[in-house]
Amino acid sequence: MIRSISDLVVINLCKINKVNYAKYSTSALPRLSSEKYNIKRKNYGAIEAPDINYFKSLLSNDRVLTEESDVLPFNIDWIKNCRGQSKVVLKPKTTEEVSQILSYCNDRKLAVCPQGGNTGLVGGSVPVFDEIILNLSSMNKIISLDEISGALVCEAGCILENLDNYVRDRNLVMPLDLGAKGSCHIGGNVSTNAGGLRLLRYGNLHGSILGIEAVKADGTVIDCLRTLKKDNTGYHLKHLFIGSEGTLGVVTKVAVHCPAVPKAVSLGYFGVNSFEDVLELYKSAKESLGEILSAFEMADNEAISSTVENCKVSNPLEDYPFYVLIETSGSDENHDDEKLNRFLSKEMESGKIVDGTITSEPAKMKNIWNIRESIPGAGLLDGYVFKYDISIPLKNYYDIVLLLRKRMGNKITRVYGYGHIGDGNIHINVSTPEYSKEICDMLEPYIFEEVAKVKGSISAEHGVGFRKPQFIHYSKDETALQLMRELKQCMDPNGILNPYKVLPDN
Amino acid sequence: MIRSISDLVVINLCKINKVNYAKYSTSALPRLSSEKYNIKRKNYGAIEAPDINYFKSLLSNDRVLTEESDVLPFNIDWIKNCRGQSKVVLKPKTTEEVSQILSYCNDRKLAVCPQGGNTGLVGGSVPVFDEIILNLSSMNKIISLDEISGALVCEAGCILENLDNYVRDRNLVMPLDLGAKGSCHIGGNVSTNAGGLRLLRYGNLHGSILGIEAVKADGTVIDCLRTLKKDNTGYHLKHLFIGSEGTLGVVTKVAVHCPAVPKAVSLGYFGVNSFEDVLELYKSAKESLGEILSAFEMADNEAISSTVENCKVSNPLEDYPFYVLIETSGSDENHDDEKLNRFLSKEMESGKIVDGTITSEPAKMKNIWNIRESIPGAGLLDGYVFKYDISIPLKNYYDIVLLLRKRMGNKITRVYGYGHIGDGNIHINVSTPEYSKEICDMLEPYIFEEVAKVKGSISAEHGVGFRKPQFIHYSKDETALQLMRELKQCMDPNGILNPYKVLPDN
Repeated sequence: MIRSISDLVVINLCKINKVNYAKYSTSALPRLSSEKYNIKRKNYGAIEAPDINYFKSLLSNDRVLTEESDVLPFNIDWIKNCRGQSKVVLKPKTTEEVSQILSYCNDRKLAVCPQGGNTGLVGGSVPVFDEIILNLSSMNKIISLDEISGALVCEAGCILENLDNYVRDRNLVMPLDLGAKGSCHIGGNVSTNAGGLRLLRYGNLHGSILGIEAVKADGTVIDCLRTLKKDNTGYHLKHLFIGSEGTLGVVTKVAVHCPAVPKAVSLGYFGVNSFEDVLELYKSAKESLGEILSAFEMADNEAISSTVENCKVSNPLEDYPFYVLIETSGSDENHDDEKLNRFLSKEMESGKIVDGTITSEPAKMKNIWNIRESIPGAGLLDGYVFKYDISIPLKNYYDIVLLLRKRMGNKITRVYGYGHIGDGNIHINVSTPEYSKEICDMLEPYIFEEVAKVKGSISAEHGVGFRKPQFIHYSKDETALQLMRELKQCMDPNGILNPYKVLPDN
Repeated sequence: MIRSISDLVVINLCKINKVNYAKYSTSALPRLSSEKYNIKRKNYGAIEAPDINYFKSLLSNDRVLTEESDVLPFNIDWIKNCRGQSKVVLKPKTTEEVSQILSYCNDRKLAVCPQGGNTGLVGGSVPVFDEIILNLSSMNKIISLDEISGALVCEAGCILENLDNYVRDRNLVMPLDLGAKGSCHIGGNVSTNAGGLRLLRYGNLHGSILGIEAVKADGTVIDCLRTLKKDNTGYHLKHLFIGSEGTLGVVTKVAVHCPAVPKAVSLGYFGVNSFEDVLELYKSAKESLGEILSAFEMADNEAISSTVENCKVSNPLEDYPFYVLIETSGSDENHDDEKLNRFLSKEMESGKIVDGTITSEPAKMKNIWNIRESIPGAGLLDGYVFKYDISIPLKNYYDIVLLLRKRMGNKITRVYGYGHIGDGNIHINVSTPEYSKEICDMLEPYIFEEVAKVKGSISAEHGVGFRKPQFIHYSKDETALQLMRELKQCMDPNGILNPYKVLPDN
C-alpha cells in the first residue's frame, strides 16, 4: 500500500539544473520500493547468464552494465524515494538495437523499464523489481534542423538544454522549458507529456511534437517521424506515445516544432486585493496583451509571506492578499512595454491592480522570478510540507485553499496556493512542524475528492508513474481506465514495458 | 477500383458557406459508390422491421427517417461524388441515445456511418452500402463557456459558424475556421482533424481540443470531457478520436479552447522574384512579425495569372514569378502596422520583396483575399483540373511543381502551385482541356511517389475517408498501418463503425 503521495514532492523541480549521479553509501540508500510500498513481483522471466551474453553480443560490453555499483544509480530516482532491484542497464545507440532488445525481452517475457534523464517525480523512470533498465542516454544525436520551418529532428536521449542551446544559436527556441532541463531527455519529456514554463505561450507537446519514432514491446518500429504540420493520413498514432510514460512503446526519435526566439521579454509584478480581481486581471491580460502574454502566475499572501520569512528574499511590494506575475515575450520591446504599461494604467484605474512594478531589465526580472521560484522550497522550512499539483477549472481554482484552511484550522502551520493561472494549474502546500499521519488522513483522499467533484486533474503535469496509479480513478472514470487497459493489452500483450506503472490493478 | 482521387476535389471548399440538402431528381443522382468503385459489401447484418421498431421505440418517430426521399440527401456527399444505399437515418438527441443505438447495432452486427455536417471531400461521411446513418445534427446544444479560460463545451452537432458567433459575442474566437463553417459540425471537425485558415496562428485540434466525450462501437461512453489545459493522469485518450474519422468511436461532446478575438488585422500582398526568396521571406516574417503572423500564403505566377484571366479578378501588382500574402492579427493596430511596415521596408531594401501593398481596410483586405480564394476555382475554366492537397517539407515545397512541368510538357494547359507555406501545405493544380486517363496515369501514382520520397503527406487536411485508403501507404508504412488495424480491432472488433473507410484492406 502506498501511504500517501504527499510525502513525495518535497523538492522544487523548478530549481534543478543538474542531476548528478552521486555515489551512494549503503546507509543512505532509499528503501526498496517493493518493500516500502508492499508490491508483489509479477510473473516475468528472470534474467540469466545467456540473456546477458545475448545483450553483450548485441551491444558493446561497455554498454551492458551489470556491476552492482554501476547499476545502483540507475535504480534510484533523483528524489531518492524509489529504489528498484535491476541487475542490468542497457545503453542502446540505435533504434535497431532498441528493437532487437525489446523483441528478445518480449519473447523471453523479461520486463523492461525505459529510462531517460531520470528526473521524474512519480517513480516512473526507475524499476520496481528486476526490470531491465533501458537507458536512452547514448541516443543523443541531433539529426536535422530545418531553420525555416523550425522542425528539429533528434534522438530521444538528447538533453533538453542542449537542444535549446542548439536551436537558440539559430534564432529558434524549444517550445518547452522546465527546471530539469539540464538533465531531462526530450524522449522522456515526450513520454511524460512534460508541461513546464512555456506552455501558456506555445501550448502542450501534443501540438508541438510533429513526429515520433517509437518501438513497440515486440520490437516493431513505428515510424511516424514526419516533420509536417498537417498530415491527415489515418490514425494520429504519435499521440499514443505522448504521455503514456513508456508503457505503450519506447520513444526513440522525435521531431519538434521550434518557434522563433522572442526578441523582447518584460515582466510585471502586481499586488491584488481579491481572487476575483486576479481572475478579472487574467481575462483583461488575455485581451490586452493577447499574443505576447507568456506567463500569468499567481501566489496568495501566505505563499509570498512564508517565502519572504523563510527564504529571506525581499518583496518589492507591500502586503497584499494576492500577487500576480505577468510575463510578455514578443518581437518588439517598445510595443510590448507600451501594451504592458497601458494594461497597468487601465487596471490600476479600475482598482484591480493596487500596486505594481514593470521591468525588462534582466537582473530585475530575475529577482522577481526568484520570489516566485522560491515559493516551493519555502514551506519546507516550516518543518514538513504536504504538496499537491492539480489542475482545476478557473472558476474553482482557489476554492480548495479556502476549504482546506477551514478544514485544517490550527492543526497546521499554513495552507497556501500558487501556480500557473494561465494553465489552470495550482500548487497547494500545507505546511506542518513535522509529518503527521493524522494530518495526512485529513488531507487525503479529501483533496482528490474535491478535485474530482469539479472534474479537475489530480496530476497536472507530473504524471502517474509508480506513485499514483491507485489515485488515478479520481481523474479517470472506469470506462476510460478499461480503454487504457485494452490499449495496453493490444500494444504490449505480455506487459513487459514499464510494469507496475500508470495502470492501476483491476 | 477507385480510378483516381484527382477527379474529386474540383470545388473550392473555401467558398462553401451553406450546404443545402437539395431535392434530387433521379436523373441527376450520382452513381452508387459501390458500383462506381466496384466495392463488395462486407458481412454485416441486414436491417429488418424489428430493428426499425427498436429505433422508433428508442427515439421519437420523427427522428427515425425511413422514407426513401427523406433518406436520399443523407446518402449523397455534397460534391455529389459518392452515393450510399442506406435505408435509415437516426437522429439521436443525447449521448445515452447514441450509446443505446451503437450497443444494439454492435450486438446485431449492423454497420453504422456517423455523419456530421456532411461537408467532407473524401466520401467519409456517407454510407457505401446500407450502413445506418447516425446523424448528429440534433445534438446541437452549447453546454457551457468559461469566458475567463476560454473553455467552450458543446455537443458534437453544433455548427462551427454558430459556435464562432456565440464566442465572438464574448470576445473570443474559435481556434479553427474553414470555408464550410456554415454547415460543418464541430464533432466532424474533431473527427477529421480539420485544419483550415487559423492553423498557423492557433495550431491544430490536437492542441486546441481540451476534452472529448465519445461512444465506442459497443456503446461504452468514454468521458474525457475535461476543460483542463494540463492533465497527466494516464493515456491521453481523446487523441484517438481526433482524426480517426469516426472509425474508432462517435464523438458526442467536445471542449474547445477559444483564444481572445484579435483586435487588429492587417494584410500585406507582395511580388517576389524566386521561390528561394519566398522561403527567406517566410523566415524573416516569422522573426519580425513572430506572434502576430497569422497567415503566410504563396501562389506562383501561373496560379495568379490563370485566376486573373479566368475569373476576371484584378491583381493590384504587376507580373511577378511569385506572390506572397501575409496576414497579421494582434491586439494593437498601430503596433502591428509598424511591424508590418518595418518588415516591408527591410525586405524591399534586401530585394526579396520587389513590389507590394499593405492594408488594414476591411474592403481592401477582402479584395486581396478574394484573389487568393479564387485560385482553386480558376483552373476549372481551363476545362478540367487534377488537384492534389499535399504536405511537403519546406525545402522541397515547390520542387514538385517544377518536376511536373518538365514531366507533363505541353500535354497539359498549365501546372501551378499555391498554398499555406506556414503550414507546409501546397495545392498542386494541373489543368487540361478535358479529363484524360493518359494524363491521370502520368500524374498518379507519380505525385504520390514523389511525396513519399520526401516523407510528405498525400492528404494534408482532407483525410482518407472512402476515397483514399488505397493510397494511404504512400504516407504510412506497413508497421503503422498494422498498428492502425490492431487499434481498430481493439476498439471496434465487429468493425461496425464507418466501414470501407480510412483503413485499407489487407
